[in-house]
Amino acid sequence: MTTKYETLLEKVHQIHDIDKAMGVLSWDRETNMPPKGIRARIDQMTTLRQLSYNLFVSDEMGELIEAAAEEVKEYPYDSNEASLLRYLQRHYANERKLTPEYVKHASEVSGQARPAWVKARAENNFAEFQPWLEQVVELCQDLAEMYGYEDEAYDALLDKYETGMKTADVRSIFAGVKEELVPLRQAVEARNDAVDDSLVHQPFDTEKQKAFVRHITAAVGYDYERGHLGTVVHPFATSFTRDDARITTRWYPDFLNPAVFGGLHESGHAMYEQGTHPDLYRTPLARGTSLGIHESQSRMIENIVGRSRGFWQAHFPKLQEMFPTQLGGHTAEAFYRAVNKAQPSYIRVEADELTYNFHIILRFELEQAMLNGDLLPADLPTAWNDKMKELLGVVPPTDSQGCLQDVHWTRPGFGYFPTYALGNLYAAQFYETAVAQHPEIADEMAQGKTTALLSWLRENIHQHGRKFTPGELVQRVTGQPLSSAAFMRYATVKFSELYGL
Amino acid sequence: MTTKYETLLEKVHQIHDIDKAMGVLSWDRETNMPPKGIRARIDQMTTLRQLSYNLFVSDEMGELIEAAAEEVKEYPYDSNEASLLRYLQRHYANERKLTPEYVKHASEVSGQARPAWVKARAENNFAEFQPWLEQVVELCQDLAEMYGYEDEAYDALLDKYETGMKTADVRSIFAGVKEELVPLRQAVEARNDAVDDSLVHQPFDTEKQKAFVRHITAAVGYDYERGHLGTVVHPFATSFTRDDARITTRWYPDFLNPAVFGGLHESGHAMYEQGTHPDLYRTPLARGTSLGIHESQSRMIENIVGRSRGFWQAHFPKLQEMFPTQLGGHTAEAFYRAVNKAQPSYIRVEADELTYNFHIILRFELEQAMLNGDLLPADLPTAWNDKMKELLGVVPPTDSQGCLQDVHWTRPGFGYFPTYALGNLYAAQFYETAVAQHPEIADEMAQGKTTALLSWLRENIHQHGRKFTPGELVQRVTGQPLSSAAFMRYATVKFSELYGL
Repeated sequence: MTTKYETLLEKVHQIHDIDKAMGVLSWDRETNMPPKGIRARIDQMTTLRQLSYNLFVSDEMGELIEAAAEEVKEYPYDSNEASLLRYLQRHYANERKLTPEYVKHASEVSGQARPAWVKARAENNFAEFQPWLEQVVELCQDLAEMYGYEDEAYDALLDKYETGMKTADVRSIFAGVKEELVPLRQAVEARNDAVDDSLVHQPFDTEKQKAFVRHITAAVGYDYERGHLGTVVHPFATSFTRDDARITTRWYPDFLNPAVFGGLHESGHAMYEQGTHPDLYRTPLARGTSLGIHESQSRMIENIVGRSRGFWQAHFPKLQEMFPTQLGGHTAEAFYRAVNKAQPSYIRVEADELTYNFHIILRFELEQAMLNGDLLPADLPTAWNDKMKELLGVVPPTDSQGCLQDVHWTRPGFGYFPTYALGNLYAAQFYETAVAQHPEIADEMAQGKTTALLSWLRENIHQHGRKFTPGELVQRVTGQPLSSAAFMRYATVKFSELYGL
Repeated sequence: MTTKYETLLEKVHQIHDIDKAMGVLSWDRETNMPPKGIRARIDQMTTLRQLSYNLFVSDEMGELIEAAAEEVKEYPYDSNEASLLRYLQRHYANERKLTPEYVKHASEVSGQARPAWVKARAENNFAEFQPWLEQVVELCQDLAEMYGYEDEAYDALLDKYETGMKTADVRSIFAGVKEELVPLRQAVEARNDAVDDSLVHQPFDTEKQKAFVRHITAAVGYDYERGHLGTVVHPFATSFTRDDARITTRWYPDFLNPAVFGGLHESGHAMYEQGTHPDLYRTPLARGTSLGIHESQSRMIENIVGRSRGFWQAHFPKLQEMFPTQLGGHTAEAFYRAVNKAQPSYIRVEADELTYNFHIILRFELEQAMLNGDLLPADLPTAWNDKMKELLGVVPPTDSQGCLQDVHWTRPGFGYFPTYALGNLYAAQFYETAVAQHPEIADEMAQGKTTALLSWLRENIHQHGRKFTPGELVQRVTGQPLSSAAFMRYATVKFSELYGL
């Protein structure tokens, strides 16, 4: 190991520490902070963000990166050193395009837009949030201009979350999904009564829900010795190191799905972080490579595992034992069917596997329209409802259940949403590959076990962290680029059987 | 307001933000972090500490401080500007005496000593902790040498926590306490059976304890809209702004005092922080002026308020209602007596008002001996037990209940302990003054109310934050320097009545 690389690594560690400290501040904001603490928290986070930014974009850092890159240029492509340098060169080039003023302003606006959104949503008052949305759209437009793009502005933003992917690729993949998924969704809707989900809509003691969620998240492989389960309004996962990767969920007193599937979902994210290779510690490679790949891990655990027949055959008896009054007279099969009811709904995070992607396509299209100036923030509620009608056939009764439902537009994060749907597609493609390579994975899954699957994920995906771009990773792992084919095969088989199509 | 001062203020804000971010990381470490997260947490905190330190001790900062001091030299002594500059000049001079290597090393050692201590205490294995204690003692010795001192090394360390106070002052005050308190404690011990505390030693559901602690801490004036109650092993209070000042306590299933008096104690600390003037926001003046004064606020709420007859006449009915089986047949008077039982014990934080100070005197003497090299860390367990015998007449059966009980010696924090006893003395002196100025405070207290007391504290102590040194503050507020007289009057009256002396 040579000197420039070591010097660089020391600086990378320092910046990484600051970024992870911000992560802790952000976790605390959601889990413990009293509402009035927000002003100071914005200041603290803005200061750390500026420090981290200024350290990273310094000329000195640029020179170090170039010198270290020169030193490691003969290293194998997949070595940690070469991978780190590729990441740093790309990230440095991007961050240098920003200005310190932009960084500070964006942190301030995001900090303030968030509580404004919480209030607007609670009071179903879009007007309260509109001025903030206008600022956020402007921040996104500025960001796209600063980053620069060849084909369309949205490319510049998407690349931040799904490095190397183009808006046109996403559009084309989504078009394919739409084409095949619309008829499937319609066929399912025509037989809506075939699946009854009243089982999950009953009163469930929240303390017991918590115990059950701890049980199943541990069962799928989430390591509580290196994790923590928190309670929040908007579930998320976050990690400060592979040895401290946290999950959160929420507890509805009369609906089981949010806690159970939220918990499984976030544990999928956190297991990805827990599985990054220890050698990547304290570097930006020690995390999931892209939001889309990250989402593939959460959707894998939430849906492919958590909404499988084998999973509930294994775990329903325990749930039944905890809730004998509610579930006593029912079978695991009935429960499996209940948690797979597919029907149009208003809330993205509670949507089933069939309709979820439509919620994303809607946001993807509206973001592009706002970014290009074709849609003014003031007109968002109407546009939202029109699209809901078009894609899902339903219209939310309030903006709180419509365009105010997500936190994402409180920050300049356009380009983030499509990665959710990409995650569904990656997940299916990975799973198909895993089973083709190791048929015992499917046998285990039929018994509700995930040991073989998890070790395949660790080996093929988790350990690499951010060494490869999502495009490189999916090619390495599955031998082909991302497509919707595996997902459509998975969904068609599963829902045809469920609904007797 | 002039330019240099404003420039300085901006830098002060930035450093303050980093320091408060460290506070959040530290809070999280105690409340949520899984044990394996510690390695990364040490790195994050060390990095932030180094950043904050390097920003503060820069030559540029020194010049700014001098230039700004020149600008505000005509400002009144008690103005925010002049007070901030006094604080910064003092603190800058001290911090410049350290070296970056020391700062990093101290942060590393403290970070690692802490989990080692947790383990050693859990396993009652002093040998496990001894090498870390040796390093901590060395760090303390180095620190004293770097800071420098005129009379004795301990002065240099004490000054960090109780600015302006000398070891000789403390020694003399403690000698007075010892002289008067020993006979009082002996008289009480001779009538040990006069007070029965079996009431508080019963099974108490911890969820209900939590509800009760929330109730009484709110009743004494702790503002939950700007606070949060957490659960920990070792209770503490911390604040990241006056609008986010948190408390913690613990729940013993069969002993009520730790939760109740721990909660009240920490709420006293947090109310001090909640009461600092908003204009001090984002500066180092926005916190209690010294550990001793801080402790006066917590002991005021824990003991003078929380262990008063009026307090339990007001709040016992509620407690009784929550625990009818345990407390149904008893009176408020019996409960008041039970929580005031005074007898020698092993654990400092559970000690009563009479014996508490002896626990501190013990630590004060042992710290000096270790600092001066008269006592080797290896011999600490023996020395501890000897002193316990001498001062309290009891010897702890294990080191876990002896020299391993406190977290303080996991960091170079010699000089911290004496401030606990000083806090008891400050509290009594402040309270005597408050009642002399506003006799209605005592009338309210007899009814378990603290509105008038809190507003006196806000006006005379809290709002000033760290504008004055503890010596200046006690002189301003009570018209005289600190002495043990008020505490001895308070203790003598209270315990003579309780024990029928």
